[in-house]
Amino acid sequence: MPWEDVLKQVREVMDELAPQAEITNIDLEGPLVVVYTRDMEFFADHPDIIKKVAQTVRRRIFIRPDPSLLMDEAQAKDEILNIVPEEAGIRDIYFVPETGEVVIEAESPGAVIGKDGQLLNEIKKRIRWAPRVVRAPPLESRIVKEMRAYLKLVREERREILRNIGKRINRPPLSGEQWVRVEALGGYREVGRSATLIMTRTSRVLVDCGLNVAVSDKADPWSGAPYLYVPEVWDASDPEKPFKHIDAVVVTHAHLDHVGLVPLLFKYNYDGPVYMTAPTRDLAAMLLIDYVKVAQSEGKKVPYESKHIKEMIKHTITLKYGETTDIAPDIRLTFHNAGHILGSSVSHFHIGEGLYNIVITGDIKYERSWLFNAAHNRFPRVETVIMESTYGGREDFQPSRREAAERLKDVVMRTYDKGGKILIPVFAVGRSQEVMLVLESFMRNGELPEMPIYLDGMIWEATTIHAAYPEYLNKDLRELIFQKKENPFLSPIFHRVESVERREEVISSSDPLIVLSTSGMMNGGPVLEYFKHWADDPRNTLVFVGYQAVGTLGRRIQNGLKEVLMSLGGKPFTVKVEMNIETIDGFSGHSDRRQLVQYISSMNPKPERVIICHGEENKCIDLAIGLHKRYGMETMALKNLEVVRLR
Amino acid sequence: MPWEDVLKQVREVMDELAPQAEITNIDLEGPLVVVYTRDMEFFADHPDIIKKVAQTVRRRIFIRPDPSLLMDEAQAKDEILNIVPEEAGIRDIYFVPETGEVVIEAESPGAVIGKDGQLLNEIKKRIRWAPRVVRAPPLESRIVKEMRAYLKLVREERREILRNIGKRINRPPLSGEQWVRVEALGGYREVGRSATLIMTRTSRVLVDCGLNVAVSDKADPWSGAPYLYVPEVWDASDPEKPFKHIDAVVVTHAHLDHVGLVPLLFKYNYDGPVYMTAPTRDLAAMLLIDYVKVAQSEGKKVPYESKHIKEMIKHTITLKYGETTDIAPDIRLTFHNAGHILGSSVSHFHIGEGLYNIVITGDIKYERSWLFNAAHNRFPRVETVIMESTYGGREDFQPSRREAAERLKDVVMRTYDKGGKILIPVFAVGRSQEVMLVLESFMRNGELPEMPIYLDGMIWEATTIHAAYPEYLNKDLRELIFQKKENPFLSPIFHRVESVERREEVISSSDPLIVLSTSGMMNGGPVLEYFKHWADDPRNTLVFVGYQAVGTLGRRIQNGLKEVLMSLGGKPFTVKVEMNIETIDGFSGHSDRRQLVQYISSMNPKPERVIICHGEENKCIDLAIGLHKRYGMETMALKNLEVVRLR
Repeated sequence: MPWEDVLKQVREVMDELAPQAEITNIDLEGPLVVVYTRDMEFFADHPDIIKKVAQTVRRRIFIRPDPSLLMDEAQAKDEILNIVPEEAGIRDIYFVPETGEVVIEAESPGAVIGKDGQLLNEIKKRIRWAPRVVRAPPLESRIVKEMRAYLKLVREERREILRNIGKRINRPPLSGEQWVRVEALGGYREVGRSATLIMTRTSRVLVDCGLNVAVSDKADPWSGAPYLYVPEVWDASDPEKPFKHIDAVVVTHAHLDHVGLVPLLFKYNYDGPVYMTAPTRDLAAMLLIDYVKVAQSEGKKVPYESKHIKEMIKHTITLKYGETTDIAPDIRLTFHNAGHILGSSVSHFHIGEGLYNIVITGDIKYERSWLFNAAHNRFPRVETVIMESTYGGREDFQPSRREAAERLKDVVMRTYDKGGKILIPVFAVGRSQEVMLVLESFMRNGELPEMPIYLDGMIWEATTIHAAYPEYLNKDLRELIFQKKENPFLSPIFHRVESVERREEVISSSDPLIVLSTSGMMNGGPVLEYFKHWADDPRNTLVFVGYQAVGTLGRRIQNGLKEVLMSLGGKPFTVKVEMNIETIDGFSGHSDRRQLVQYISSMNPKPERVIICHGEENKCIDLAIGLHKRYGMETMALKNLEVVRLR
Repeated sequence: MPWEDVLKQVREVMDELAPQAEITNIDLEGPLVVVYTRDMEFFADHPDIIKKVAQTVRRRIFIRPDPSLLMDEAQAKDEILNIVPEEAGIRDIYFVPETGEVVIEAESPGAVIGKDGQLLNEIKKRIRWAPRVVRAPPLESRIVKEMRAYLKLVREERREILRNIGKRINRPPLSGEQWVRVEALGGYREVGRSATLIMTRTSRVLVDCGLNVAVSDKADPWSGAPYLYVPEVWDASDPEKPFKHIDAVVVTHAHLDHVGLVPLLFKYNYDGPVYMTAPTRDLAAMLLIDYVKVAQSEGKKVPYESKHIKEMIKHTITLKYGETTDIAPDIRLTFHNAGHILGSSVSHFHIGEGLYNIVITGDIKYERSWLFNAAHNRFPRVETVIMESTYGGREDFQPSRREAAERLKDVVMRTYDKGGKILIPVFAVGRSQEVMLVLESFMRNGELPEMPIYLDGMIWEATTIHAAYPEYLNKDLRELIFQKKENPFLSPIFHRVESVERREEVISSSDPLIVLSTSGMMNGGPVLEYFKHWADDPRNTLVFVGYQAVGTLGRRIQNGLKEVLMSLGGKPFTVKVEMNIETIDGFSGHSDRRQLVQYISSMNPKPERVIICHGEENKCIDLAIGLHKRYGMETMALKNLEVVRLR
């Protein structure tokens, strides 16, 4: 149905079902049909009506107050501050015009609500925005605040973008034989540059668009990138807008090997939507901006600029877990918890009207961790699963979280006893927060002596973003964080390294200490500074707690590299690796072999086919064979550039 | 190397190696670099020079006389007729400007050549064209003559087309990672609409572009067509020239399921080359023109017009078996005998400089037949074979040619004894000539009583094209044909049905007789007229000697269909099938299971991978499994729309 007809039909159904609702406008906003009304209460009292309209037109309907009703934002803010008593401890007030809501972050939410909701009702009556009160997160996130400010700044521009996206989604699907294909564009039989293309007769959806940061071949500007230049993705006839046939981009989580080249699409004027969860958007923004900054400061070529990251944010549509949304005329997307990092998603694609269902796991942890619940594996329907296999090899059995923690304790203790320092390379997002929680807990219980833990390279920033999205954390942690006194992240043992001077102090300190620093695979970042100075002292320990990809310095050191050529003050010098090297498995955000197999075997319903990706070649093949032998389902280890027809 | 540089380099090497040769021009002509000279004899005396130049610039070099030297064609023709005595029996003289040759077709070639080549030398000296004398074919082919006339007519236009093709072939290949992919576009896990796309980083080559004539769904204009609308083939941004990214089209043989939609490419302004053998071009022209004519007369929609067939011919570059040619910056093609029908080819693709080799068998007969040698399976290198599997099922073992002939004799004899008539549906090209040879031989030897054999629907035309290309036939038949007295095709038992009146006479005749008529699968053509009138008489016999595809009337009758709804004089009426239905295996132009397996097992060198196509789904899968189990090589039964990466 063309979009004009969709709007017309919504109008007709509305007129029939709710003639008394004062509807002032009906518009497209990305995947949503937004109905503006002067009578929000009518719809609050009649929730069935929206459901019925949605079912009739088969679209997601959103009711929103007519903007003319809402008080000006600055004025409304003043009103709220007047009404609410000071002891409520309001920390932030921000407006969400998309929902007609105003969010009030307060230290004592009860004091904002008032007895029997009295104050809240008063606020509502005065400003007409719908107030939502939330407990102020214990940590302030600079990124989250900047994101809100930026989105406010580009609100008008974004409205137009979303309307165009809506028009595109609502174009009629092509008739004739219907089929479903999937192409491996990157990250198949390898780790890095993840990218998968879903193609139907009508639509093309790109799932992830990662960058392999371990690869940088200056002769080939596309090295480290997925195969985006193939005609299935790149329209060579329109060099101004080569990605124009892509209906939507879906990002499963914020790591660079999944989101690192999404801004490149915008460099080439992609103007479609990017779907991800809100925490993925914020974490991705942080990591991408840092990536560009670091690369530029190191004089490396970067395939895009900061402004393209901003374009990405401008075109991002956030979805919550469990929220089903049309992203193309014949494709619906639903995100679910993946357990890997904050906001990470298992993506379920429903194609056609009951034609086919694909689940793309992204990176998954199928075990409850200190941070998240285990990855979701219950779906209404699923025929094909595309699953990661980072630890999918037949030998890849990992210790439990508990055992891993015990090993870490041992390593720290032994190094402490020798008077050495401990360096732990970590991704800013994911592993660092888990290791922080474990170390803090041991020190609090006295199982480890107290010593300072230094956080270098965006780890603190990432941690604050976790606090801003408590609904994405598991229940235990959520409670810990909001019990302010026991909030582990606020423990005084943690110190942020915020300047080069501070880093030098830490490096030359003679006290026992622990450093958590990025990058997690040692292919850049401040971790190298610590390593440079500490590597030749056998009392010190380097502890790997995460996956080290082929080609990274981390992997080579793990494999026994004894000398590393680095530079010091611009001059090349050779670092001798005399420090103790430890690898502690079990902290990974990836499922081990057993968990991957269990994820599939306990999936409900059972998939017909599993495509293995995101693992070294032998692991992909081994897991594919293993699953096929044990469960009889069709399995395949696609190669990059291959296309399989699912239906 | 850009094409300008190629020409420059040829010029430089020529100047160095052959400064005395009077070179007047160097130009591109499709895959060739053509060097025009005033001194043909110099090059005739120094054949090594061309070889050296070719090796240096890595291009095929062609030496041609400067046109200003050659006598005007009409005048030259008169000169030849003056010089050659009448008893030579000159039947045709035609000029080939591409080679600077004049071909003299004569009944007594010796009389044209003269004692010690005296006359020939004289001709050459006078007209400057290089005379080539060939024995006049015993049958005149209308199609072959028309083809020569047409090519002469469009010679100038063609020169420009070939120059542009040459420029495109000589563009520099893209740098960076090199890979090879193959896409199944049609005819995979099915028979009909064969189409395969070879993709490299630089180039795209379409091998076959067939039409499934058994499918005609009016709701879907692309029914019966390969999946040409996918972005790998079709550039949606340029609706004027959507096929512009295709570097070359290769046609393996003239049947409609392989060439039927090549003209469609020209309807959409494709302007690249089409490579095939000369007999494939002539047969394809005949079959395509007939297809359009018949379809139009039946009021069916045809996806293109006659003028697009002409465009195809204009863009066709013919290759001989064993002639290696650049068809893209990084792809070289060599055709070899496939044994299936006249001019049918096994295509060998050499990609990059030693990067990869693919063999696409097209349809193959791996057994010497009455017409052709067994399919070629010796190559310099081959990693992947894409092979047909029409009779690839585990039960598909066929009798030998000899046994098949004996069975045919029995069936004819029994029907003759009952006083019935025999109807044999055949493809015009391939089976009909074999059946003619067998029947003629039995009647000549007295093993069958003499009775008239009527040829309806282009069988005669097709037969004459065989006589025009004796070098494509096996040696025995070639000798038979040229021993005029015994030429089986000239036997008086054969009668052409050239008019509706004649057909009606044959239909109502009460004498014993045999009809060979198209179409071979009874999905149209004059065979239906005979069937309509003869089907209800149990004395008559319908004999299938070729493959009947799923969905065709032939297949349904073979499966026991007892009533067929047809039309007679525009009115629907029901034909009761009472006639005797016989299927004689062993005449097929396709290899049976044993021959397919032998073709691969005796291939030299052994391929690493075999992709199975052109067979019903279960046959493709069964053959893939069988070959893998027996020889351990990787095998796959791709689905249409799938892409596999070979390297």
